[in-house]
Amino acid sequence: MRDVFHEELEGITVSLVEMSSMVASAMARATTALLDADLQLAEQVITADETVDLLRNEIEERAFDILARQAPVATDARVIVTTLRIVADLERMGDLALHVAKVARRRYPGKAVPPELTGTITEMGQVAQRIVAKAGSVIASRDTELAAELEADDDAMDHLHRQLFHILLEREWTHGMEAAIDITLCGRFYERYADHAVSVARRVVYLVTGEKSA
Amino acid sequence: MRDVFHEELEGITVSLVEMSSMVASAMARATTALLDADLQLAEQVITADETVDLLRNEIEERAFDILARQAPVATDARVIVTTLRIVADLERMGDLALHVAKVARRRYPGKAVPPELTGTITEMGQVAQRIVAKAGSVIASRDTELAAELEADDDAMDHLHRQLFHILLEREWTHGMEAAIDITLCGRFYERYADHAVSVARRVVYLVTGEKSA
Repeated sequence: MRDVFHEELEGITVSLVEMSSMVASAMARATTALLDADLQLAEQVITADETVDLLRNEIEERAFDILARQAPVATDARVIVTTLRIVADLERMGDLALHVAKVARRRYPGKAVPPELTGTITEMGQVAQRIVAKAGSVIASRDTELAAELEADDDAMDHLHRQLFHILLEREWTHGMEAAIDITLCGRFYERYADHAVSVARRVVYLVTGEKSA
Repeated sequence: MRDVFHEELEGITVSLVEMSSMVASAMARATTALLDADLQLAEQVITADETVDLLRNEIEERAFDILARQAPVATDARVIVTTLRIVADLERMGDLALHVAKVARRRYPGKAVPPELTGTITEMGQVAQRIVAKAGSVIASRDTELAAELEADDDAMDHLHRQLFHILLEREWTHGMEAAIDITLCGRFYERYADHAVSVARRVVYLVTGEKSA
């Protein structure tokens, strides 16, 4: 059945995929800014977050509008509400990229990431890119098998997160407390970013199957 | 106009206030567990979080049910969606209390908070109690003036958060990296807890005035 409701919903899906690209790009640039102490790039991420927030507001308004005009049945109302939650997850992912960029800016011209952690943070940035790309594909395709893959990527992120603490704790730390704090916070930002991507994928699965995963 | 829709909505409001009490109690106990290295209390908070999640699910189901049966007009649909966001904020506050309790459990029988930070963490716990109590009152009363007060409490929390970093950075830190990591994370948990309480209050203001604050 292709009616106005489903056409409008499809329009929203397109915007959600666009929003996932924006927060993917934000985290990619924030990671580079962090690793290279690139102030200009950090500032770009910080400014661009406003665009993410604007898109969020626009999608929300459209969802309210559909709820009001279409008075959708229970299932369709659930789709709209789930959509609003996906928007909230994506917006939060944008915020987390922003937080990483702010750490880069705060430490400029210094580098927030000491040499022995460059590899771990680089990998965390790569996993973040992989997981957000998949989240975007899951939104577009509603592919529940692909959605299941995000759980493994999230495990990889958790592993890197533990590795980061391991390096902070086990080796002789010579970079001072400020660097330790920044690394602790950035580690959490990447880990939460992946959590929200998993949450996006789970919500899509819920839409398709009607069942909540853990 | 007192119709079925508004009666059901009132029932949801009562549950939201109850949920705010639960996450207030969770953070109060988590703070004590953290400061006193009280394993039993920490375990209690960790177990009790399931009750918070159950209440969240129950409120959500009721909201979906209202959306489906009542086919509310635009304004009322907005109320329901905003309610769902308040539930999400409260659930997240419960999670943050849980995270604090997990730090207490991980460090047991040691104490996660060294003596020179006991005062700051105690105060952060007190501000958390003040702000969540006010958030609960704002949900119940829709008092926009009280809602404005939460911004000042949030400023107080941000101040304590900066003070915590100041102590970590400025003094001679003799408690090792693990304690520094735990304190950094706990500081963020309290700060985010207050942020979500402010978010709850702002959403209520939005319901009353139709206007989003910053």
